[in-house]
Amino acid sequence: MARIWSTDLAEHAGQQVELAGWLHRFRQLSRVSFLILRDGKGLAQIVIEEPALLEQLAALPNETVLRVSGTAVAVAQAPGGVEVHDPVVEVISVPTEPPPFELHRPTLGVQLPTLLDNAAVALRHPRQRAIFRLAAASVAGYRAALQTQDFVEIFTPKIVASATEGGANVFPVDYFGQTAYLAQSPQFYKQMLVGVYERVFEVGPVFRAEPHATPRHLNQYTSLDFEMGFVRDHTTVMETLTGVLRQMVETAREEAAESIALLNLTFPEIPASIPSIHFDDAQRLIERATGEDLTGEPDLAPAHERWLGEWAQREHGSDFLYVTGYPTVKRPFYTYLEPGRPEFTNSFDLIFRGLELVTGGQRLHQYEDYVAALDARGLPHGPFEGYLAAFRHGMPPHGGCAMSIERWVARLLGIQNIRETILFPRDLTRLTP
Amino acid sequence: MARIWSTDLAEHAGQQVELAGWLHRFRQLSRVSFLILRDGKGLAQIVIEEPALLEQLAALPNETVLRVSGTAVAVAQAPGGVEVHDPVVEVISVPTEPPPFELHRPTLGVQLPTLLDNAAVALRHPRQRAIFRLAAASVAGYRAALQTQDFVEIFTPKIVASATEGGANVFPVDYFGQTAYLAQSPQFYKQMLVGVYERVFEVGPVFRAEPHATPRHLNQYTSLDFEMGFVRDHTTVMETLTGVLRQMVETAREEAAESIALLNLTFPEIPASIPSIHFDDAQRLIERATGEDLTGEPDLAPAHERWLGEWAQREHGSDFLYVTGYPTVKRPFYTYLEPGRPEFTNSFDLIFRGLELVTGGQRLHQYEDYVAALDARGLPHGPFEGYLAAFRHGMPPHGGCAMSIERWVARLLGIQNIRETILFPRDLTRLTP
Repeated sequence: MARIWSTDLAEHAGQQVELAGWLHRFRQLSRVSFLILRDGKGLAQIVIEEPALLEQLAALPNETVLRVSGTAVAVAQAPGGVEVHDPVVEVISVPTEPPPFELHRPTLGVQLPTLLDNAAVALRHPRQRAIFRLAAASVAGYRAALQTQDFVEIFTPKIVASATEGGANVFPVDYFGQTAYLAQSPQFYKQMLVGVYERVFEVGPVFRAEPHATPRHLNQYTSLDFEMGFVRDHTTVMETLTGVLRQMVETAREEAAESIALLNLTFPEIPASIPSIHFDDAQRLIERATGEDLTGEPDLAPAHERWLGEWAQREHGSDFLYVTGYPTVKRPFYTYLEPGRPEFTNSFDLIFRGLELVTGGQRLHQYEDYVAALDARGLPHGPFEGYLAAFRHGMPPHGGCAMSIERWVARLLGIQNIRETILFPRDLTRLTP
Repeated sequence: MARIWSTDLAEHAGQQVELAGWLHRFRQLSRVSFLILRDGKGLAQIVIEEPALLEQLAALPNETVLRVSGTAVAVAQAPGGVEVHDPVVEVISVPTEPPPFELHRPTLGVQLPTLLDNAAVALRHPRQRAIFRLAAASVAGYRAALQTQDFVEIFTPKIVASATEGGANVFPVDYFGQTAYLAQSPQFYKQMLVGVYERVFEVGPVFRAEPHATPRHLNQYTSLDFEMGFVRDHTTVMETLTGVLRQMVETAREEAAESIALLNLTFPEIPASIPSIHFDDAQRLIERATGEDLTGEPDLAPAHERWLGEWAQREHGSDFLYVTGYPTVKRPFYTYLEPGRPEFTNSFDLIFRGLELVTGGQRLHQYEDYVAALDARGLPHGPFEGYLAAFRHGMPPHGGCAMSIERWVARLLGIQNIRETILFPRDLTRLTP
C-alpha cells in the first residue's frame, strides 16, 4: 500500500490507507483518544481505542516518527471531515528529548530569539512552515511569469573582485590569499546579459554587510531580479513587474492554498494598471497635506511612504503605488536620467501598503554615459572594466528591478520582524543554526 | 506594431514586422546585400537593396543595436525560410569599438582565457549562449519534476559559522570582525528541513576553496540539491533522481529546442530503471577484466569509472550507471551504513558516460548514530549543534543527492573545460568579470 499525504485523506474515505509523520499531539479524552499525526503537508486525526496502543502512545514523546495504517472514515465532526479508525501504528524513530515548545498550539508563542535558536524544531510548527510554502510558491510564480515572457534564468558570481556597487557594506572574503567580496546584487551581471539574451532573471542570495540590528535588516536575503532590453523606459519595467506580481499571487493561490488558509492571508488586489506618481509631484502632495517643507529633500521618509500608501488607497483604491523619478543623487550611477530633467531619474519604487517593496528603473546604455556618470561621482573605471565592456559593444535601452522574497512575504502577512520570513536568518549577531 | 522575435518570423510571412537586435553581420554580395540581425533568441536575414541604406549599414560596426521594420517574405533559400524585405532601419546604439572576435563564425575559435576575459561579448555568440539556455531549461525541468512530487523549494544560508562539512576547503568571510565561512553545500539545512516538509530542494551557489587549477574545478558552482524523508533506503533517492533526470531532458527539449539544434545535441536515453552495481561487485568486475588488485582500495579511480561506463553501455545499453555502497571511509559522517556490512554505506554515485554526475545516499536519522559517527571521526559536537537538534527531535529515514548544473551541461555537450559551462567562472586566478 502506498503511503498518502494527510491532506489527501478525504479522497480516500472508506479505504485502507497508510500515513507517516510525526506525533503532533496525543489527546486522551474520557471516552476516546486522538493521535494527531503531522506529515510534511498537514495533520491527520487517528482514533485510538485499543488499550494497549493507547498506553504505548501515551508514553511516547511528541515528535516521535510514526507510520500509521488504518481505515479512512468520513466523520462530519473530524477536522477535514475524515479520520482514521482501527489503526496499526509502527514507531520509526523516538526523540531523545521533548520539543522545547508545544508545536500543537495555534501559534508558537515564544520570543523570536528562542524560535530562531531552535529553528530545526520551530519550523515544524504548521504556521511557521506555512510561511515558507507561501514564499516558495511566490518564487515559482515569479519564475513562471518571466519564463512565459522569454526571460532566461541566470546564475551569476557571488564572489566579486571589488566592492563596486554600494561602497562599504560588503563582506570581505579571503579568496586564496586575495581579498574579494560577497556580491551585493547581480546588477552588473544581469545588465551584461541583456546584451546576450535581452531578458534575464535570477533568484539567488545577496549579501549586505549592514551593521544594523533592526527588524528590517538581514545580512543575507533572497533577491528576485530581472532585467530586460529594448524598453521604452522605466515604465516598460513597471508594466512587466505588475504582471509578475499578479502571477506570484496566482501561483501562490494554486500551490499554497492550505498555507494561505492557515495563515489567514487575504491577498491584495493587483490593479490592471498600478497607479503611479512622480517623486516631485508626490512631495508637493505631501507638502500640501502636511504643511512640511520638502525643498531639497532627495528621498521619501518612511512617514511619507506611509502617507502615499494611504493616498493610493484613498484616491485609487490600490494597495500598490509606483513612485517614479527619484532624484539622481539618491540613485546608483547606472541609472538613466529623466529626459529634460537630469536632476531626476527614470527610476521607480513600488510602494505596497505604505512600504517599499521593489526598486527598479531604466539603466544607462551608452558607453559615454557610463564614463560621464563614473567621472561625475569620482569613481575609477578599472573595477568596472568587465561591465563597461558590454556598453562599448552595443547595448539597447534596458531596465529592471529587484525585490526580496522575504520582504514580499513579510508585507503580505504583516510580519514585523523580517527574520521570521527567512528559514535561517543571518544578522549582526546570528550565524547559527 | 509590436516587435517580434526573429524566431517567430516564419509565423508572420506576408506581414509587416518589426524586429530589434544587434548587427550580427553585414554581407555585401555583388547583386544583393544581407543584414543579419541577432536578437535574444535567434537570427533574421534582412535584404538590403536601397543604396543609401546599404552605404549606411556598411559603415556601422558589428554589434550596432538596430530596430528594423519591413515585410516578412517566405523565400525557400533564406535561413528558416523567411527573410525581411523593404526594411526601414533605425540605429539605436553604436558600439565604440568593434568586437574582439567575429561573432558570426560557427564557433568563436579563441582560447578559453580570451573568451572568459571578454565574457560580455563572447556570450553573445549563438553557440555560447545556447549552452546557458540548455542549462536554464535543465534547471527548470529539475524544479518541475520535484515540485510535482511535493518537494518544497528552500533558500538556505551561504554564510556559516564553522567549516563543518569538508575540512579545509572553505572560503573564510570576515563577518563583522568574526571569521565565518562560505557554505560548501546546503547539506545540513536540507536534512533539517526534512523534519519540516519531508521533501525539499534547493538550486543555489556553493563554494569550494579547492586550490586546483584543472579543467574540472570551479570555486563557485550551482548545486541542484534535493532531500526526502520516509525513504526505504538510498534506492528511493535513486528512483526519484532517475525521474528527475528524465524531466530535465524533457523540459530542455521543449524549452531549449533551438539551442539543442544549434549545439547538435542528442540527448542520452534515460532507461526506465538505470542499472546499478554495488561498489564491491564493481571492483571484482574490474579486477577480473583488468587483472588489477583492488583490495583495500576505498574509491574508484577515473579509469575505473570509465571502464564501468563502458561496461554499462555494453551490458545494459545504458549511458548511466548507479554505483552503490561506497566504502564508509570515503563518505561523510552522516552517511547511513549498509545493514550487515558497516564497511560500506547506503550511498551512490551516478556515472554518466564514465564520469561521476551525481552523489547521494541515505543519511543517518537517529541521534545516537550521529553521536557515534562524530565520535568515531574525532569530530566535536559543538559546531553541529543546530543540525543535531533536528535528530534529537525525531527524524525519519531520509536521503538525497546533489549535482552541479555545470557538470550536467559539460557531460551532455562533451565540453572538456568546466569553465565553459558557467557564465562567469571563479577559479584559482579568476575573479573577473
